[in-house]
Amino acid sequence: MKLVLVRHGQSLWNLENKFTGWVDVDLSEKGVEEAKRAGKILKEEGIQFDKAYTSVLKRAIKTLHFILEECDELWIPEEKSWRLNERHYGALQGLNKLETAEKYGEEQVHIWRRSYDTLPPEIKNDNPLSQDGDRRYIYKDAVPHTENLKVTLERVMPFWTDKIAPDLLDGKNVIVAAHGNSLRALTKHLENISDEDIMGLEIPTGSPIIYELDKKLEIVDKKIFK
Amino acid sequence: MKLVLVRHGQSLWNLENKFTGWVDVDLSEKGVEEAKRAGKILKEEGIQFDKAYTSVLKRAIKTLHFILEECDELWIPEEKSWRLNERHYGALQGLNKLETAEKYGEEQVHIWRRSYDTLPPEIKNDNPLSQDGDRRYIYKDAVPHTENLKVTLERVMPFWTDKIAPDLLDGKNVIVAAHGNSLRALTKHLENISDEDIMGLEIPTGSPIIYELDKKLEIVDKKIFK
Repeated sequence: MKLVLVRHGQSLWNLENKFTGWVDVDLSEKGVEEAKRAGKILKEEGIQFDKAYTSVLKRAIKTLHFILEECDELWIPEEKSWRLNERHYGALQGLNKLETAEKYGEEQVHIWRRSYDTLPPEIKNDNPLSQDGDRRYIYKDAVPHTENLKVTLERVMPFWTDKIAPDLLDGKNVIVAAHGNSLRALTKHLENISDEDIMGLEIPTGSPIIYELDKKLEIVDKKIFK
Repeated sequence: MKLVLVRHGQSLWNLENKFTGWVDVDLSEKGVEEAKRAGKILKEEGIQFDKAYTSVLKRAIKTLHFILEECDELWIPEEKSWRLNERHYGALQGLNKLETAEKYGEEQVHIWRRSYDTLPPEIKNDNPLSQDGDRRYIYKDAVPHTENLKVTLERVMPFWTDKIAPDLLDGKNVIVAAHGNSLRALTKHLENISDEDIMGLEIPTGSPIIYELDKKLEIVDKKIFK
């Protein structure tokens, strides 16, 4: 069975160099093109998908839809979950990366971006970019107010265990369209990457990563299309 | 709770005046515009959807996605089912309505289009427009080879009973993006329309029908946006 991971195409805030996190920013025009290109690649590879997973953020959902449309597989079952959302970037959400460096110092920002377990400052509920009160999250006990990759991984993993892994063990081909850090979390688990090394792993936008897995979900083959 | 029914926007074969049925034809440019317009109408109405249902045919799926994008609700759960597909049009699939009249006679074609329980000729498995062997249907015992509205209604109703009605009874607002005849089937049930009258009911493309229902799923209010 095959597992395909795709990071969403460029978003409007990637373009503006802002911390995005859980803010529901749309794809840029380039991002749309990247998503369609990813679809063409997967169509050429001839993979027939049985199940699609994505986050509850439109940049990932639309990337998935553009891909499935190119593959003529819009009809496959699709499930969305906040567990596949991008890392929540706390009070940094909406800030330009340059502004952030001026405000907090370059070294501190580097730590927040690159440390596995350091948390950025929490976003306050009265911040208009907070997810407090957002209807798509209201049924849960708590919306995060900041995350590092460690925390992100801890909330991604139940989704792997309960949803994606059972589908793969069932012999299904699965596509996951998600975000830099939720995909880092899955990759860390799949490839057994250390806490130290994982932050150095860059997952390019709109570039499908195709894993072929055996019955124990060990990697038999890996292809990346850049 | 609210139930919104939307027939997909114009498809390429609506435009060419062909019988479409289960053939997976895309939206025309006008159809895309109709879908976006339906989304704008529903956004203005301010309905917050909790669940979306559609068929496994791209003209309905894409209509749903355009609507949800306009409403900024792409994130809501979505389920696709062959039970919401268009009526299967048997051997007529792919034929121009004029050609069909020449081949079978105008009166006969009128009967197939307008009779509640007369079946058009069955499509053969070797017809390239048959759904035999289509991966999305292969898990079922049988793919239909022709349908009238009666048969269509019989396969739509379990989906109403098992999926849509329980969601509504749960207090959810539900949107169903589907097809002329699968929506006729739902409307026949909801409005208790007779076998004789139902074929005269035209459901316009891309025009949301908003039902407000009470706790017994009786209609309290109905609005159509043309």
